[in-house]
Amino acid sequence: MQPRELLNELFHTALAVASPSRRMPEFLAEAAGMARGRVIVVGAGKASAAMARAVEDNWPGMKSQLSGLVITRYGHAVPCRHIEIVEAAHPVPDAAGRDAARRLLNETVANLTPDDLVLCLISGGGSALLALPGEGITLEDKQALSRELLNSGATIGEINCVRKHLSAIKGGRLALACRPARMLTLLISDVPGDDPTVIASGPTLPDESTCADALAVLEKYAIPASPAIIDYLKSGHGETPKPDNPAFSKGLARIIATPQIALEAAAARARELGYPAHILSDAIEGEARDVALVHAALARQVAARNQPFAAPCVILSGGETTVTVRGKGRGGRNVEFLLALALALKGHPGIHALAADSDGVDGAEEIAGAVIDPTTLARAAAAGLLPAASLANNDGHAFFEAIGDSLVTGPTLTNVNDFRAILVMPPTH
Amino acid sequence: MQPRELLNELFHTALAVASPSRRMPEFLAEAAGMARGRVIVVGAGKASAAMARAVEDNWPGMKSQLSGLVITRYGHAVPCRHIEIVEAAHPVPDAAGRDAARRLLNETVANLTPDDLVLCLISGGGSALLALPGEGITLEDKQALSRELLNSGATIGEINCVRKHLSAIKGGRLALACRPARMLTLLISDVPGDDPTVIASGPTLPDESTCADALAVLEKYAIPASPAIIDYLKSGHGETPKPDNPAFSKGLARIIATPQIALEAAAARARELGYPAHILSDAIEGEARDVALVHAALARQVAARNQPFAAPCVILSGGETTVTVRGKGRGGRNVEFLLALALALKGHPGIHALAADSDGVDGAEEIAGAVIDPTTLARAAAAGLLPAASLANNDGHAFFEAIGDSLVTGPTLTNVNDFRAILVMPPTH
Repeated sequence: MQPRELLNELFHTALAVASPSRRMPEFLAEAAGMARGRVIVVGAGKASAAMARAVEDNWPGMKSQLSGLVITRYGHAVPCRHIEIVEAAHPVPDAAGRDAARRLLNETVANLTPDDLVLCLISGGGSALLALPGEGITLEDKQALSRELLNSGATIGEINCVRKHLSAIKGGRLALACRPARMLTLLISDVPGDDPTVIASGPTLPDESTCADALAVLEKYAIPASPAIIDYLKSGHGETPKPDNPAFSKGLARIIATPQIALEAAAARARELGYPAHILSDAIEGEARDVALVHAALARQVAARNQPFAAPCVILSGGETTVTVRGKGRGGRNVEFLLALALALKGHPGIHALAADSDGVDGAEEIAGAVIDPTTLARAAAAGLLPAASLANNDGHAFFEAIGDSLVTGPTLTNVNDFRAILVMPPTH
Repeated sequence: MQPRELLNELFHTALAVASPSRRMPEFLAEAAGMARGRVIVVGAGKASAAMARAVEDNWPGMKSQLSGLVITRYGHAVPCRHIEIVEAAHPVPDAAGRDAARRLLNETVANLTPDDLVLCLISGGGSALLALPGEGITLEDKQALSRELLNSGATIGEINCVRKHLSAIKGGRLALACRPARMLTLLISDVPGDDPTVIASGPTLPDESTCADALAVLEKYAIPASPAIIDYLKSGHGETPKPDNPAFSKGLARIIATPQIALEAAAARARELGYPAHILSDAIEGEARDVALVHAALARQVAARNQPFAAPCVILSGGETTVTVRGKGRGGRNVEFLLALALALKGHPGIHALAADSDGVDGAEEIAGAVIDPTTLARAAAAGLLPAASLANNDGHAFFEAIGDSLVTGPTLTNVNDFRAILVMPPTH
C-alpha cells in the first residue's frame, strides 16, 4: 500500500468507527427503557441528522413514538420519516438556524409531560446551528461576533463560553424548557477532554461558567462586541442555569463517540497493515502552525534516531487546533497545520502526513483537509507557489488545491474533530 | 527522590555532560596535530571562556604556543593565563563586544602565516557577542534591530540570517581574515539541527543564505530597520562568502556537544533512577505557549491512558522555542512554556515539570527557568497571582519568582539550548 493510500485508509477507518450508524444502536435500548410514551427527538450538530436517522433505523420500540426536530448544517441532512430535519448555516449562524431553534424551543418541547422523553442528539457544530440570541440581541450582532471569535485564536471552549451566555437555548436552557419531561442526551464529542457540557455549548447540560468569564474572553482577544451584547453580559441577563438547578435532575447524558475511539481504530488498522502506531493525544490544542512545528520535530527525531518511536511507524493525534487569521486566505486549521509541517520538514524523504477535520469541513470550506509527502514543496515550487507566503496569508486551501492534494470527503455525517496521521519511514527506505 | 529533586538531578546531569571541561579534551589532540607553531585561540559565546580554559588545562603541546582572544557574556568569564577573555553584552550587543570583535579581527588574526593554527571556540550567544557592524552601520542601529528581532517571534535561524548579513565578522568573514592560517573550529551546538554554520552565526563557516533572505525576514516579521541597514542589505554590501570560497578549504569544524547528548544523559540518569525516559526531540521550535499545549496534551494522555508511553515516565525535549512578546513582562521562553503548561494542566495531580535554558539564562534574566508541580496554580492563587494575566503579559519570571519556583543556576558555562523534563506519574500514585 502506498503511503498516501495508507493514510487515507486510516482516516476512513477513523470516520467509520465514529459514525452514528455504527455507534447509536447500543445506546437506544436505554433510551427506549426511559420512554413511557412520546419520544421527542431534538438536537443540533453536523452529525445530528445522521444520529436521528440512526434512531429511526434502530429504535427498539414503536416508531410511531418518535417525533421531533433536529438542526444540521447545510449539506449534512439525511432523510428521516418521523423527525423533521432542518438545515442551517455553520460556523456563522443564519436566520434558518435561528428560526428553527426558536421553533424547537417554543413548539417542539413546549407543554411536555413527565411521561415524555426528550432524546437530544448533540454533535459538534451544534453551537452555531442552535443560534437563538437572548432577548435584545439580534442575529446580526451574533453573526458579527461569531466571525470575530472564529478568527481570534480563541479556543473552542472560550468561544462556546461566550456563545452560552448570549443564547436563549444553549448552556442548559433547553433543559429548562423541556421540564417536566425526562431527558437523555446522546453526544458525539468533538471537544478536547470530551466534557459533555462543552459539546455544542451544552444545551441540555448545566454550565459552570459565568457572564464574567464570557466578558473575560472578549477582553482577552480584544473582540469588538455590540453595546447590546456587552449590556446583556454585564447585566447578568445571560447567566446560565447552574448544576444545582433541579431541571437537570431528570436528565442523563451519554457520549457515544469520541476522538479517542477514532484514533484507536486508526491505530489498530495501521497495526493490521504492519505499521506500529502511536497516539500522542486525542486533545491537542494550540495554534496550528506551532503544533505543526512540534509534530515536525518529533517526526524528524523518529526518522533520524528511532526515538521516541522506532521507524517505520504511524503517529496519530487529535484535538482542535486554532488559527489566528492574520492573512486574507480562507483559513482551515488542518491545511494550515500541513503547510507549516511541510515547510518545517523541507522535503524530508521519509515523512508523509494527512490532516483533516473528521466532519469533512476544515474551516469554512467543503474540503476536509489535505495530504503532504516528500515532494510537496518541490511540486509547489514547480507550480510557482510560495508556501511560506501561503502560510503567512492563512491560505492553505488554495495551496493544496493548486497542487491537487486537497482531501475532499463531502459531509462525513460524524464529527470527532481533527485527525492527524504522520507516517515516518526509516532512512534507508 | 521527590519529583522536584528528580527533575533537578536530570537537568544537572544534562549540564554536566555538555560542559567544556568534559567535552573538550578529546578534541584537542586533533588540534595539537594541526599546530606547527603558534595556536591563536579565538571565539565567542556563553561557553567560550570555559572552552578556552579547557584548552589551557588540557593542551597536549606546549602551553606557550597558546595566545588569543575570546569574548563571552558578562558573568561567564573564567580566568585564563594565555588567552585573553573579554566580557560583553548578550542578547543585545554593546560597545565592549564591538570593540573586542574589532580587535579580534584587526589584530588577533592579522598577519597570520600558513604555519599558524586558528582554534576557534564557538558557542551559543556568540552571534550577539561578536557584534561588529558592517561599514556604515552603527552599533545603535544593530542594537535597535536586535531588540526588535528578539521580540518578534522570529526563529534563531532567521535572526542569525539577518545578523550575518549586517556583520563584518560573522557569516564566514572571520575565516577570510584568518587566511593563510589553518583553522579548526570547535562548537557547542545550541541550534535545532546542529548546523555549524548557524551556531553563533558561523563566523568561520560558509553561509548559504543571502541578503535577500535577510530582507525577507525583516519583511516577514514587519521589523522596522534603519535606512542604513536597508541600504546595506539592498546594495549587496552585506553578502557573505559562499561555500566555494577558497578561504574555507583550510578549515575544519567539529561539534563537541549537542542538545541531544544532554538529553541522552538525562534519559540515562532517569532510567538509573527507575523511570523510563523518552526523548521527543532535541530540536523543537515554535511559540513557547503553543509548544506547551502540545506537551500538556501528551502528558495528560500518558497519565490517563498510558499512551504513547506508560506512566510513570519522564518525557524529555530540547530545542529553542520563541516568545512573541506582546505584554510588558520580561519574557523568557522556558518560563513562558511552564506558565502555559501549568494553565493547561489545571493542577493535574500526577504531572511535574522543569524547563530551563541550559546556559542558565532564560531570556534576558539571570534565571535559568523554573519548575511546576500539581500545586503551582493553587499556590499562585493563594499568593494573589493571576497566571493567565501573567502569561498574557509575558511575565513568567515574575510569576515564578513570586511563588519561589524560579530555577537559578548562575552561568552554567555551557549552552545546549532549552531543556524540558516532564515527570508523569500513574493516576493511583
